Amino acid sequence: MGRPKVAILSCDLIAGAAMDLVNSTGAFTIPELARRLKVSPSSLYNHVSGREQIVELLREKAMSEVRLPDLGGPWIDVVAEIARSYYRSYARYPRLIPLMTAYPVGSRQAVAMYDALAVTLTRAGFTAEDTLRIITLIDSFVLGSALDAAAPAEPWGNAADAGPELAAALATGTARADRAEDAFEFGLAVLLRGLSRL
Amino acid sequence: MGRPKVAILSCDLIAGAAMDLVNSTGAFTIPELARRLKVSPSSLYNHVSGREQIVELLREKAMSEVRLPDLGGPWIDVVAEIARSYYRSYARYPRLIPLMTAYPVGSRQAVAMYDALAVTLTRAGFTAEDTLRIITLIDSFVLGSALDAAAPAEPWGNAADAGPELAAALATGTARADRAEDAFEFGLAVLLRGLSRL
Repeated sequence: MGRPKVAILSCDLIAGAAMDLVNSTGAFTIPELARRLKVSPSSLYNHVSGREQIVELLREKAMSEVRLPDLGGPWIDVVAEIARSYYRSYARYPRLIPLMTAYPVGSRQAVAMYDALAVTLTRAGFTAEDTLRIITLIDSFVLGSALDAAAPAEPWGNAADAGPELAAALATGTARADRAEDAFEFGLAVLLRGLSRL
Repeated sequence: MGRPKVAILSCDLIAGAAMDLVNSTGAFTIPELARRLKVSPSSLYNHVSGREQIVELLREKAMSEVRLPDLGGPWIDVVAEIARSYYRSYARYPRLIPLMTAYPVGSRQAVAMYDALAVTLTRAGFTAEDTLRIITLIDSFVLGSALDAAAPAEPWGNAADAGPELAAALATGTARADRAEDAFEFGLAVLLRGLSRL
Protein backbone atom coordinates (compact mmCIF):
# COMPACT_ATOMS: atom_id res chain seq x y z
CA MET A 1 0.00 0.00 0.00
CA GLY A 2 2.63 2.56 1.05
CA ARG A 3 2.06 6.28 1.26
CA PRO A 4 -0.36 7.87 -1.19
CA LYS A 5 1.43 9.53 -4.05
CA VAL A 6 1.64 13.25 -3.50
CA ALA A 7 2.51 15.46 -6.45
CA ILE A 8 5.65 17.44 -5.72
CA LEU A 9 4.74 21.07 -5.23
CA SER A 10 5.83 23.32 -8.09
CA CYS A 11 5.00 26.73 -9.52
CA ASP A 12 3.04 24.97 -12.27
CA LEU A 13 0.95 23.04 -9.80
CA ILE A 14 0.31 26.17 -7.73
CA ALA A 15 -0.69 28.16 -10.84
CA GLY A 16 -3.00 25.36 -11.99
CA ALA A 17 -4.78 25.19 -8.62
CA ALA A 18 -5.07 28.99 -8.45
CA MET A 19 -6.53 29.03 -11.98
CA ASP A 20 -9.12 26.40 -10.97
CA LEU A 21 -10.11 28.44 -7.93
CA VAL A 22 -10.39 31.69 -9.93
CA ASN A 23 -12.39 29.97 -12.68
CA SER A 24 -14.85 28.51 -10.21
CA THR A 25 -15.11 31.23 -7.58
CA GLY A 26 -13.62 34.39 -9.13
CA ALA A 27 -10.90 34.68 -6.51
CA PHE A 28 -8.23 32.81 -4.56
CA THR A 29 -6.59 33.15 -1.17
CA ILE A 30 -3.34 31.59 0.01
CA PRO A 31 -5.09 29.47 2.72
CA GLU A 32 -7.65 28.13 0.18
CA LEU A 33 -4.88 27.34 -2.25
CA ALA A 34 -2.93 25.49 0.44
CA ARG A 35 -6.02 23.49 1.43
CA ARG A 36 -6.68 22.53 -2.18
CA LEU A 37 -3.08 21.42 -2.69
CA LYS A 38 -3.10 19.65 0.69
CA VAL A 39 -0.04 21.52 1.90
CA SER A 40 0.55 24.15 4.56
CA PRO A 41 0.58 27.82 3.53
CA SER A 42 4.23 27.94 4.57
CA SER A 43 5.14 25.23 2.02
CA LEU A 44 3.59 27.43 -0.66
CA TYR A 45 5.96 30.19 0.37
CA ASN A 46 8.88 27.89 -0.42
CA HIS A 47 7.88 28.21 -4.09
CA VAL A 48 6.29 31.62 -4.48
CA SER A 49 6.91 34.89 -2.71
CA GLY A 50 3.19 35.55 -2.27
CA ARG A 51 -0.07 36.48 -3.87
CA GLU A 52 1.47 38.87 -6.37
CA GLN A 53 3.75 36.20 -7.84
CA ILE A 54 0.83 33.77 -8.16
CA VAL A 55 -1.11 36.44 -10.08
CA GLU A 56 1.92 36.75 -12.40
CA LEU A 57 1.93 32.97 -12.95
CA LEU A 58 -1.75 33.22 -13.96
CA ARG A 59 -1.01 36.11 -16.30
CA GLU A 60 1.78 34.08 -17.93
CA LYS A 61 -0.59 31.16 -18.40
CA ALA A 62 -3.20 33.36 -20.13
CA MET A 63 -0.64 35.32 -22.16
CA SER A 64 1.21 32.21 -23.35
CA GLU A 65 -1.58 31.79 -25.92
CA VAL A 66 -1.10 35.26 -27.41
CA ARG A 67 0.66 34.96 -30.79
CA LEU A 68 2.58 38.00 -32.00
CA PRO A 69 2.42 38.62 -35.76
CA ASP A 70 5.34 39.69 -37.96
CA LEU A 71 5.81 43.34 -37.02
CA GLY A 72 6.81 44.26 -40.59
CA GLY A 73 3.26 44.74 -41.96
CA PRO A 74 1.10 47.91 -41.95
CA TRP A 75 0.62 49.12 -38.36
CA ILE A 76 -3.18 48.82 -38.50
CA ASP A 77 -2.93 45.13 -39.41
CA VAL A 78 -0.30 44.43 -36.76
CA VAL A 79 -2.36 46.14 -34.02
CA ALA A 80 -5.52 44.32 -35.18
CA GLU A 81 -3.79 40.91 -35.12
CA ILE A 82 -2.36 41.47 -31.65
CA ALA A 83 -5.75 42.66 -30.34
CA ARG A 84 -7.52 39.58 -31.80
CA SER A 85 -5.04 37.14 -30.31
CA TYR A 86 -5.15 38.92 -26.92
CA TYR A 87 -8.98 38.88 -27.01
CA ARG A 88 -9.20 35.15 -27.83
CA SER A 89 -6.77 34.33 -25.09
CA TYR A 90 -8.59 36.23 -22.34
CA ALA A 91 -12.08 35.25 -23.50
CA ARG A 92 -11.09 31.80 -22.16
CA TYR A 93 -10.31 33.15 -18.70
CA PRO A 94 -12.84 35.93 -18.06
CA ARG A 95 -12.74 35.56 -14.30
CA LEU A 96 -9.00 36.24 -14.33
CA ILE A 97 -9.46 39.71 -15.80
CA PRO A 98 -10.07 41.75 -12.62
CA LEU A 99 -7.03 40.12 -11.03
CA MET A 100 -4.92 40.96 -14.07
CA THR A 101 -5.77 44.65 -13.90
CA ALA A 102 -5.45 44.81 -10.10
CA TYR A 103 -1.76 43.86 -10.10
CA PRO A 104 1.14 45.45 -11.98
CA VAL A 105 2.22 43.59 -15.12
CA GLY A 106 5.49 41.75 -14.60
CA SER A 107 5.46 38.64 -16.77
CA ARG A 108 7.82 38.48 -19.73
CA GLN A 109 5.04 37.30 -22.07
CA ALA A 110 2.92 40.33 -21.29
CA VAL A 111 5.83 42.75 -21.61
CA ALA A 112 6.66 41.19 -25.02
CA MET A 113 3.14 41.95 -26.25
CA TYR A 114 3.19 45.54 -24.97
CA ASP A 115 6.66 45.94 -26.50
CA ALA A 116 5.33 44.81 -29.91
CA LEU A 117 2.49 47.34 -29.66
CA ALA A 118 4.82 50.15 -28.59
CA VAL A 119 7.30 49.45 -31.41
CA THR A 120 4.47 49.33 -33.97
CA LEU A 121 2.76 52.52 -32.78
CA THR A 122 6.03 54.43 -32.51
CA ARG A 123 6.94 53.43 -36.09
CA ALA A 124 3.47 54.57 -37.18
CA GLY A 125 4.40 58.04 -35.93
CA PHE A 126 2.48 58.25 -32.65
CA THR A 127 4.13 60.18 -29.80
CA ALA A 128 5.20 58.33 -26.65
CA GLU A 129 2.24 59.90 -24.83
CA ASP A 130 -0.29 58.71 -27.42
CA THR A 131 1.39 55.29 -27.59
CA LEU A 132 0.65 54.78 -23.88
CA ARG A 133 -2.93 56.00 -24.37
CA ILE A 134 -3.50 53.71 -27.35
CA ILE A 135 -2.06 50.70 -25.49
CA THR A 136 -4.41 51.50 -22.61
CA LEU A 137 -7.35 51.82 -25.02
CA ILE A 138 -6.57 48.43 -26.60
CA ASP A 139 -6.21 46.88 -23.15
CA SER A 140 -9.54 48.26 -21.93
CA PHE A 141 -11.39 47.35 -25.12
CA VAL A 142 -9.94 43.82 -25.31
CA LEU A 143 -10.50 42.98 -21.64
CA GLY A 144 -14.03 44.45 -21.67
CA SER A 145 -14.80 42.49 -24.84
CA ALA A 146 -13.40 39.29 -23.31
CA LEU A 147 -15.83 39.77 -20.40
CA ASP A 148 -18.62 40.28 -22.94
CA ALA A 149 -17.62 37.06 -24.75
CA ALA A 150 -18.22 35.21 -21.48
CA ALA A 151 -21.61 36.88 -20.96
CA PRO A 152 -24.82 34.86 -21.19
CA ALA A 153 -26.10 34.14 -24.72
CA GLU A 154 -28.64 36.94 -24.22
CA PRO A 155 -26.82 39.49 -22.06
CA TRP A 156 -29.85 41.73 -21.74
CA GLY A 157 -32.21 38.97 -20.60
CA ASN A 158 -35.75 39.44 -21.78
CA ALA A 159 -35.45 43.22 -21.14
CA ALA A 160 -39.19 43.43 -20.64
CA ASP A 161 -38.95 47.17 -19.94
CA ALA A 162 -36.98 48.01 -23.10
CA GLY A 163 -38.29 50.74 -25.37
CA PRO A 164 -38.84 50.03 -29.09
CA GLU A 165 -35.35 51.21 -30.22
CA LEU A 166 -33.55 49.04 -27.67
CA ALA A 167 -35.87 46.09 -28.33
CA ALA A 168 -35.16 46.33 -32.09
CA ALA A 169 -31.40 46.48 -31.47
CA LEU A 170 -31.47 43.52 -29.05
CA ALA A 171 -33.53 41.46 -31.50
CA THR A 172 -30.64 41.58 -34.00
CA GLY A 173 -28.39 39.75 -31.51
CA THR A 174 -30.89 37.17 -30.32
CA ALA A 175 -29.98 33.59 -31.11
CA ARG A 176 -26.89 34.78 -32.95
CA ALA A 177 -24.07 32.50 -31.82
CA ASP A 178 -21.35 34.92 -32.93
CA ARG A 179 -22.89 38.06 -31.35
CA ALA A 180 -19.88 38.79 -29.11
CA GLU A 181 -17.25 38.05 -31.78
CA ASP A 182 -19.16 40.16 -34.33
CA ALA A 183 -19.34 43.07 -31.86
CA PHE A 184 -15.62 42.71 -31.13
CA GLU A 185 -14.69 42.91 -34.84
CA PHE A 186 -17.01 45.90 -35.30
CA GLY A 187 -15.50 47.65 -32.25
CA LEU A 188 -11.95 46.93 -33.38
CA ALA A 189 -12.68 48.43 -36.81
CA VAL A 190 -14.21 51.56 -35.18
CA LEU A 191 -11.22 51.95 -32.91
CA LEU A 192 -8.69 51.58 -35.76
CA ARG A 193 -10.66 54.00 -37.95
CA GLY A 194 -10.66 56.49 -35.07
CA LEU A 195 -6.90 56.05 -34.62
CA SER A 196 -6.09 56.41 -38.32
CA ARG A 197 -7.67 59.89 -38.30
CA LEU A 198 -5.65 61.20 -35.37
CA MET B 1 -29.65 43.44 29.03
CA GLY B 2 -32.27 41.85 26.78
CA ARG B 3 -31.57 40.34 23.37
CA PRO B 4 -28.97 42.00 21.18
CA LYS B 5 -30.52 44.22 18.56
CA VAL B 6 -30.61 42.44 15.21
CA ALA B 7 -31.20 44.47 12.08
CA ILE B 8 -34.31 43.25 10.30
CA LEU B 9 -33.29 41.48 7.12
CA SER B 10 -34.10 43.41 3.95
CA CYS B 11 -33.03 43.52 0.31
CA ASP B 12 -30.98 46.62 1.12
CA LEU B 13 -29.14 44.89 3.92
CA ILE B 14 -28.51 41.84 1.74
CA ALA B 15 -27.22 43.99 -1.13
CA GLY B 16 -24.95 45.94 1.24
CA ALA B 17 -23.42 42.78 2.69
CA ALA B 18 -22.98 41.26 -0.79
CA MET B 19 -21.27 44.48 -1.97
CA ASP B 20 -18.88 44.35 1.00
CA LEU B 21 -18.01 40.73 0.21
CA VAL B 22 -17.45 41.45 -3.49
CA ASN B 23 -15.36 44.53 -2.73
CA SER B 24 -13.12 42.63 -0.33
CA THR B 25 -12.91 39.19 -1.95
CA GLY B 26 -14.15 39.60 -5.54
CA ALA B 27 -17.03 37.17 -5.08
CA PHE B 28 -19.91 36.15 -2.81
CA THR B 29 -21.75 32.93 -2.04
CA ILE B 30 -25.13 32.53 -0.37
CA PRO B 31 -23.65 30.66 2.66
CA GLU B 32 -21.00 33.38 3.18
CA LEU B 33 -23.63 36.06 2.90
CA ALA B 34 -25.84 34.28 5.44
CA ARG B 35 -22.90 33.93 7.85
CA ARG B 36 -22.04 37.60 7.52
CA LEU B 37 -25.66 38.64 8.17
CA LYS B 38 -25.93 36.11 11.01
CA VAL B 39 -28.99 34.45 9.49
CA SER B 40 -29.63 31.07 7.93
CA PRO B 41 -29.43 30.74 4.13
CA SER B 42 -33.14 29.90 4.14
CA SER B 43 -34.00 33.28 5.73
CA LEU B 44 -32.19 34.93 2.83
CA TYR B 45 -34.50 33.12 0.45
CA ASN B 46 -37.47 34.80 2.14
CA HIS B 47 -36.22 38.07 0.62
CA VAL B 48 -34.43 37.17 -2.60
CA SER B 49 -35.04 34.39 -5.08
CA GLY B 50 -31.33 33.57 -5.31
CA ARG B 51 -27.92 34.57 -6.53
CA GLU B 52 -29.20 36.14 -9.72
CA GLN B 53 -31.49 38.56 -7.88
CA ILE B 54 -28.66 39.58 -5.55
CA VAL B 55 -26.48 40.34 -8.60
CA GLU B 56 -29.34 42.54 -9.89
CA LEU B 57 -29.47 44.40 -6.56
CA LEU B 58 -25.73 45.08 -6.90
CA ARG B 59 -26.19 46.28 -10.48
CA GLU B 60 -28.95 48.64 -9.33
CA LYS B 61 -26.67 50.01 -6.61
CA ALA B 62 -23.86 50.72 -9.12
CA MET B 63 -26.20 52.04 -11.82
CA SER B 64 -28.09 54.35 -9.46
CA GLU B 65 -25.15 56.77 -9.80
CA VAL B 66 -25.39 56.95 -13.58
CA ARG B 67 -26.91 60.29 -14.63
CA LEU B 68 -28.62 60.43 -18.00
CA PRO B 69 -28.19 63.72 -19.90
CA ASP B 70 -30.90 65.52 -21.86
CA LEU B 71 -31.27 63.37 -24.98
CA GLY B 72 -31.99 66.41 -27.16
CA GLY B 73 -28.36 67.37 -27.85
CA PRO B 74 -26.06 66.14 -30.65
CA TRP B 75 -25.74 62.33 -30.49
CA ILE B 76 -21.97 62.40 -30.03
CA ASP B 77 -22.31 64.57 -26.92
CA VAL B 78 -25.15 62.46 -25.49
CA VAL B 79 -23.21 59.20 -25.99
CA ALA B 80 -20.06 60.79 -24.50
CA GLU B 81 -21.95 62.02 -21.41
CA ILE B 82 -23.57 58.64 -20.80
CA ALA B 83 -20.22 56.85 -21.24
CA ARG B 84 -18.51 59.22 -18.76
CA SER B 85 -21.18 58.80 -16.12
CA TYR B 86 -21.22 55.01 -16.58
CA TYR B 87 -17.39 54.93 -16.31
CA ARG B 88 -17.27 57.01 -13.13
CA SER B 89 -19.93 54.85 -11.53
CA TYR B 90 -18.20 51.53 -12.22
CA ALA B 91 -14.70 52.80 -11.50
CA ARG B 92 -15.93 52.82 -7.87
CA TYR B 93 -16.88 49.14 -7.96
CA PRO B 94 -14.28 47.44 -10.17
CA ARG B 95 -14.64 44.06 -8.49
CA LEU B 96 -18.34 44.02 -9.39
CA ILE B 97 -17.63 44.14 -13.12
CA PRO B 98 -17.15 40.43 -13.88
CA LEU B 99 -20.35 39.66 -11.97
CA MET B 100 -22.22 42.30 -13.98
CA THR B 101 -21.20 40.80 -17.32
CA ALA B 102 -21.77 37.20 -16.16
CA TYR B 103 -25.50 37.71 -15.51
CA PRO B 104 -28.20 39.02 -17.84
CA VAL B 105 -29.15 42.66 -17.28
CA GLY B 106 -32.50 42.99 -15.58
CA SER B 107 -32.47 46.11 -13.43
CA ARG B 108 -34.64 49.05 -14.46
CA GLN B 109 -31.77 51.53 -14.01
CA ALA B 110 -29.57 49.62 -16.44
CA VAL B 111 -32.34 49.19 -19.01
CA ALA B 112 -33.02 52.95 -18.81
CA MET B 113 -29.40 53.69 -19.72
CA TYR B 114 -29.35 51.22 -22.61
CA ASP B 115 -32.69 52.67 -23.75
CA ALA B 116 -31.21 56.18 -23.82
CA LEU B 117 -28.27 54.92 -25.89
CA ALA B 118 -30.55 53.03 -28.31
CA VAL B 119 -32.86 56.04 -28.81
CA THR B 120 -29.88 58.34 -29.41
CA LEU B 121 -28.09 56.01 -31.85
CA THR B 122 -31.30 55.23 -33.76
CA ARG B 123 -32.01 58.96 -34.13
CA ALA B 124 -28.42 59.43 -35.37
CA GLY B 125 -29.27 57.07 -38.21
CA PHE B 126 -27.56 53.85 -37.14
CA THR B 127 -29.32 50.57 -38.05
CA ALA B 128 -30.68 48.34 -35.28
CA GLU B 129 -27.77 45.94 -35.92
CA ASP B 130 -25.13 48.66 -35.55
CA THR B 131 -26.96 50.12 -32.54
CA LEU B 132 -26.48 46.79 -30.70
CA ARG B 133 -22.81 46.65 -31.78
CA ILE B 134 -22.17 50.23 -30.64
CA ILE B 135 -23.87 49.63 -27.28
CA THR B 136 -21.67 46.54 -26.85
CA LEU B 137 -18.57 48.55 -27.81
CA ILE B 138 -19.40 51.26 -25.26
CA ASP B 139 -20.05 48.61 -22.60
CA SER B 140 -16.75 46.83 -23.26
CA PHE B 141 -14.74 50.04 -23.41
CA VAL B 142 -16.34 51.54 -20.27
CA LEU B 143 -16.04 48.39 -18.16
CA GLY B 144 -12.46 47.74 -19.32
CA SER B 145 -11.59 51.37 -18.55
CA ALA B 146 -13.22 51.13 -15.11
CA LEU B 147 -10.96 48.14 -14.37
CA ASP B 148 -7.98 50.21 -15.56
CA ALA B 149 -9.02 53.07 -13.26
CA ALA B 150 -8.72 50.67 -10.32
CA ALA B 151 -5.31 49.42 -11.48
CA PRO B 152 -2.18 50.22 -9.48
CA ALA B 153 -0.69 53.71 -9.98
CA GLU B 154 1.93 52.13 -12.26
CA PRO B 155 0.07 49.29 -14.00
CA TRP B 156 3.18 48.07 -15.79
CA GLY B 157 5.32 47.90 -12.66
CA ASN B 158 8.97 48.67 -13.26
CA ALA B 159 8.79 46.75 -16.59
CA ALA B 160 12.50 46.04 -16.36
CA ASP B 161 12.39 44.07 -19.61
CA ALA B 162 10.65 46.80 -21.63
CA GLY B 163 12.25 47.88 -24.91
CA PRO B 164 13.00 51.57 -25.52
CA GLU B 165 9.66 52.39 -27.25
CA LEU B 166 7.59 50.86 -24.43
CA ALA B 167 9.82 52.41 -21.77
CA ALA B 168 9.36 55.86 -23.36
CA ALA B 169 5.58 55.40 -23.51
CA LEU B 170 5.36 54.18 -19.91
CA ALA B 171 7.48 57.12 -18.71
CA THR B 172 4.77 59.53 -19.89
CA GLY B 173 2.29 57.95 -17.45
CA THR B 174 4.59 57.67 -14.46
CA ALA B 175 3.56 59.70 -11.46
CA ARG B 176 0.65 61.14 -13.43
CA ALA B 177 -2.33 61.00 -11.07
CA ASP B 178 -4.86 61.31 -13.91
CA ARG B 179 -3.27 58.66 -16.18
CA ALA B 180 -6.40 56.44 -16.27
CA GLU B 181 -8.88 59.33 -16.69
CA ASP B 182 -6.71 60.87 -19.43
CA ALA B 183 -6.56 57.52 -21.27
CA PHE B 184 -10.34 57.12 -20.93
CA GLU B 185 -11.00 60.56 -22.48
CA PHE B 186 -8.53 59.83 -25.28
CA GLY B 187 -10.14 56.43 -25.96
CA LEU B 188 -13.65 57.89 -25.91
CA ALA B 189 -12.63 60.54 -28.48
CA VAL B 190 -11.08 57.82 -30.70
CA LEU B 191 -14.24 55.70 -30.52
CA LEU B 192 -16.54 58.62 -31.30
CA ARG B 193 -14.32 59.72 -34.20
CA GLY B 194 -14.39 56.14 -35.53
CA LEU B 195 -18.18 56.04 -35.19
CA SER B 196 -18.76 59.39 -36.85
CA ARG B 197 -16.99 58.09 -39.99
CA LEU B 198 -19.15 54.97 -40.34
